[in-house]
Amino acid sequence: MKSLHILLLIIMGGIISIPASGQDSIHIGTRHTMFSQILNEERAYWIYQPEKQAGEADKNYPVLYLLDGDVFFHSVVGFTRFFSSSRASAFPPCIVVAVLNTDRTRDFTPSCSAAHRDGTVHSEDKPQGGGAEKFYRFLTEELRPEIRKRVSTGSQSLLVGHSYAGLFTLQVLLDHPEAFDTFMAIDPSLWWDQGIYLKQAKQEMHKKDFAGKQLYVAFATQQRPNVKLNQFSLADSLKAKIIPDMEKQHLHVIYKKFPEEMHGTVALPGIFDGIKSLFRRQLRQ
Amino acid sequence: MKSLHILLLIIMGGIISIPASGQDSIHIGTRHTMFSQILNEERAYWIYQPEKQAGEADKNYPVLYLLDGDVFFHSVVGFTRFFSSSRASAFPPCIVVAVLNTDRTRDFTPSCSAAHRDGTVHSEDKPQGGGAEKFYRFLTEELRPEIRKRVSTGSQSLLVGHSYAGLFTLQVLLDHPEAFDTFMAIDPSLWWDQGIYLKQAKQEMHKKDFAGKQLYVAFATQQRPNVKLNQFSLADSLKAKIIPDMEKQHLHVIYKKFPEEMHGTVALPGIFDGIKSLFRRQLRQ
Repeated sequence: MKSLHILLLIIMGGIISIPASGQDSIHIGTRHTMFSQILNEERAYWIYQPEKQAGEADKNYPVLYLLDGDVFFHSVVGFTRFFSSSRASAFPPCIVVAVLNTDRTRDFTPSCSAAHRDGTVHSEDKPQGGGAEKFYRFLTEELRPEIRKRVSTGSQSLLVGHSYAGLFTLQVLLDHPEAFDTFMAIDPSLWWDQGIYLKQAKQEMHKKDFAGKQLYVAFATQQRPNVKLNQFSLADSLKAKIIPDMEKQHLHVIYKKFPEEMHGTVALPGIFDGIKSLFRRQLRQ
Repeated sequence: MKSLHILLLIIMGGIISIPASGQDSIHIGTRHTMFSQILNEERAYWIYQPEKQAGEADKNYPVLYLLDGDVFFHSVVGFTRFFSSSRASAFPPCIVVAVLNTDRTRDFTPSCSAAHRDGTVHSEDKPQGGGAEKFYRFLTEELRPEIRKRVSTGSQSLLVGHSYAGLFTLQVLLDHPEAFDTFMAIDPSLWWDQGIYLKQAKQEMHKKDFAGKQLYVAFATQQRPNVKLNQFSLADSLKAKIIPDMEKQHLHVIYKKFPEEMHGTVALPGIFDGIKSLFRRQLRQ
């Protein structure tokens, strides 16, 4: 009996100590998985929930859907905390949902293509990609209801993507502008399938209504050594030929270039600047 | 006996369940406090420890001391994770120690002064500040040994500060260059005490040896509405009059301006760019 009591005390000591060490730990989110019927596979996502600000107990915060989520999660959570506590910004506290990848080329591209970055196609290359519409359906028909079950969310939402995920973000804006309120596309891969996005956008833009929606789009313009790319001229085409059409259809657009960044480094400066630029508040001092 | 066994099973069940729920939580660090004899007060700090990279079980990582730590912790942890996993960067995984404030004006400023940002002094203003040397002693004589007790640290260390904490970072570089390897000063408050740092630096620089040390210093050059500031001309003076002297004494210096940022928004873009610029690796592709 005595040894059992001692064991019990040791175990209870262990239990009592757990909340104490838990308090000392800095959590930024929770990991989850769900089975997607649409994609027919298990998908992982992470959720960050901001603390409720004073006097906002009943308020539900917007949701920022972050593609390539695990790579940028910590930084973007930091940005949302920074801007939502800044007097210079009208950015609200945000729930951040990081969506993790299984096959990003498949999920983020709007068409099946074998074309290279410079537009060339070689006979030996196998076409790939084309799953963007399916992935969009996963995001909005499966993941979003799942998030709403777990967290009280506001009605506003943001979609944020870089590279292929930036292209996906532009494609969702074009095909399903009602699905999100704010779109941030950082160095979107406009070269995909010989610039198919620009062609489709040029044809279809006049049918759209983007009232109340906003887009931040940014490009890294520092050349990568030894990478042939027609991305720079495509970025200029987006600005000259597509954005004026978007604005005609009532989209609020901010377009930026980052001359000090390359494709691989622009995502975080772009997301930071995107939040800052879209949600800038007139400073009182 | 039987009820005790059942209790035991329940308790043990509880224990067993704890790691399972713990796995779903994303932790980025731990909160700590210590009593500083030098400052005669309780001080709080947070520690982020990176996961050991493959084949580096025995390797100890550098420590990045982050001033105004709670404001920037999440983002900077994100940056260190991003750069240490990037092929384009030679930045190692880093332990991040966020140092939280009690009285930042006292701790970060090198002299006691009543001068305003524009250099004027009004008779009714009470001088304040001047605790930088004491705070330096807390950092290196008390906090650093405490960190070394808790975590296996490498010998390299970085000091990162913004605003008053940026001025403090420059002051430590001048007075105690041996204390850190990399110094990052973002929009340092050079206007403090009518520009006392620049005067002291001009006089003393020739006595220093900065071999093996590096400094990143950046300024926001977007004007704040209604704030009179001679910071812009002081930033130019630092570049023209002090940095050449620093380089003569073998300091590797990177100096940047951020024309799109104001004092309040430059810290995170500055720290990101600082890590990128100081630890850039020649890209292979």
